[in-house]
Amino acid sequence: MIYVSMTGEESEVFDAKEFIENSLEEIRKAVGGNRVISACSGGVDSTVATFLVHKAVGKNLIAVFIDDGLRREGEPEFVVRTLKNLGIRTRFVDAEKEFFAVFKGKTDAEEKRKAFRDKFYRTLGEVSKELKIQFITQGTIKADIIETVKGIKSQHNVLEQIGINPEIYGYKILEPLRELYKPDVRKVARELGLPKEISERMPFPGPALSLRVLGEVTPEKISIVRKATEIVEAETAKLGTFQNFAVLHNDKATGIKDDKRVYGNIITIRIVDSEDAVTAKVRLVNYEILMKISARITKEIPSVVRCLYDITDKPPATIEFE
Amino acid sequence: MIYVSMTGEESEVFDAKEFIENSLEEIRKAVGGNRVISACSGGVDSTVATFLVHKAVGKNLIAVFIDDGLRREGEPEFVVRTLKNLGIRTRFVDAEKEFFAVFKGKTDAEEKRKAFRDKFYRTLGEVSKELKIQFITQGTIKADIIETVKGIKSQHNVLEQIGINPEIYGYKILEPLRELYKPDVRKVARELGLPKEISERMPFPGPALSLRVLGEVTPEKISIVRKATEIVEAETAKLGTFQNFAVLHNDKATGIKDDKRVYGNIITIRIVDSEDAVTAKVRLVNYEILMKISARITKEIPSVVRCLYDITDKPPATIEFE
Repeated sequence: MIYVSMTGEESEVFDAKEFIENSLEEIRKAVGGNRVISACSGGVDSTVATFLVHKAVGKNLIAVFIDDGLRREGEPEFVVRTLKNLGIRTRFVDAEKEFFAVFKGKTDAEEKRKAFRDKFYRTLGEVSKELKIQFITQGTIKADIIETVKGIKSQHNVLEQIGINPEIYGYKILEPLRELYKPDVRKVARELGLPKEISERMPFPGPALSLRVLGEVTPEKISIVRKATEIVEAETAKLGTFQNFAVLHNDKATGIKDDKRVYGNIITIRIVDSEDAVTAKVRLVNYEILMKISARITKEIPSVVRCLYDITDKPPATIEFE
Repeated sequence: MIYVSMTGEESEVFDAKEFIENSLEEIRKAVGGNRVISACSGGVDSTVATFLVHKAVGKNLIAVFIDDGLRREGEPEFVVRTLKNLGIRTRFVDAEKEFFAVFKGKTDAEEKRKAFRDKFYRTLGEVSKELKIQFITQGTIKADIIETVKGIKSQHNVLEQIGINPEIYGYKILEPLRELYKPDVRKVARELGLPKEISERMPFPGPALSLRVLGEVTPEKISIVRKATEIVEAETAKLGTFQNFAVLHNDKATGIKDDKRVYGNIITIRIVDSEDAVTAKVRLVNYEILMKISARITKEIPSVVRCLYDITDKPPATIEFE
């Protein structure tokens, strides 16, 4: 297993240009003439990592986008288009049905994360065998490592810390951003000339919308939370918050639709400010915006009768619900 | 079955004094020399109904307080003390264990309401047999009847509309407030000289905290929501809202306590303005208050990691969750 060590420093003194130069050199040294894949979700971390390796080894890097059926509205198309625009070789893997299959019957948060992670690595393992690659790039950043070590979350892209040996999946790991905090990753993105949609992109978890469906993950539930997410993002785009999303509860609640009592779905809206995801503060969003989101969600998604706003900082809550 | 018809009118023209006079006369006529019990929860409706009948028939009225284990902190003591201060004969029934027994294994909202209602009437039936009474007084008001007929809720104290024959429980029903809306009930309470804690008392549902625990109702879950309710009520007492309460979810969410990831409880805070409970508006409570409630609840109730604020008007949500 090879880790590329980086020269990450405090934000104030971080020099993105210097980081990139050192990084490209270290990646070239580590990879040699081997082939690399990079699982790219379209988030700032994985896209920066992918683009760095692409700059370092060119055609020897193949970006892989796994469509797990858990992405936001329009996201698979956006990611593939962005990678193509950057001149990166890209492989699109349609694994929607297979991912839903692994979630079947699983209701515990940690069990779901593990199911996702395992399926993710098995899928990558298959692609890597097929493409005969030796390295896989991951967008792991410092906060992921800190929280995994502290036991706050089992990040799906920090293998070593959680005792998984990536060799069993058939490849070595390249984590060019592992010493960086989020703001520095964004500086690197800007310095690399990546489009704003990437450099300023809101964090989005690896297991995607599966973390935002409490209880069992099904295509129906993902489609509800996807629509709610679209509404939340549209109505809060201008707030400039760190994260803004929707969560579908497994619990139901009573409501009134067409003058009749119904037992319907509950959606929670979560909007937080954060520097690095290690701590986060609830954004005290204007009620006018919240009430508009609540009205749109209960109107545009017929099964939803109730919207809640998360008013818990991290800690004691985490940013995500699972 | 005998219903006492009343002279309820629109609020603007409602004359509480006249209502009381007519009411006392009609109650006396209906009851004659028979004995009456009145199940009093301490809410404004049931206390006004109880006190009216007490004024009408004196010692022939026995108030019954059933301690179902689902009441708020200090509530059983408060109700019994209030009734005694009013000079009303009172019977205290300790039925805590029996009520929790009927909730066992029940997770559906309507099933839980039915279980509560049935247990409530069976308990009252036993007391009425023991006390050899012929009439039972209930605090049914107009909104209960409207919503029951519309199918929005199955109010536990409107028997006729839901097809239950009270005769099978062994008594006749007296509903002196059934033509009144909530604001007029409060006027009657003031006119009767009831203490402010009663006349201005916030509405509280018959099935009490059992409606505020999603999923199965257990003593542990009731104790969590009871504590959360106490905090919400203390921090929002001055807002003068129609209702302000806490709900314990069945879903769990991740959080961080003592630097470790935990899977903990979720509490929703609901604070609404309403005239008559038929419609309700979310009170746009100052964030300072909400964040203080959130901090207190997650600190003072160790199992809770997350607080949410309900931002849904009625309709499309109901005021309660179940």
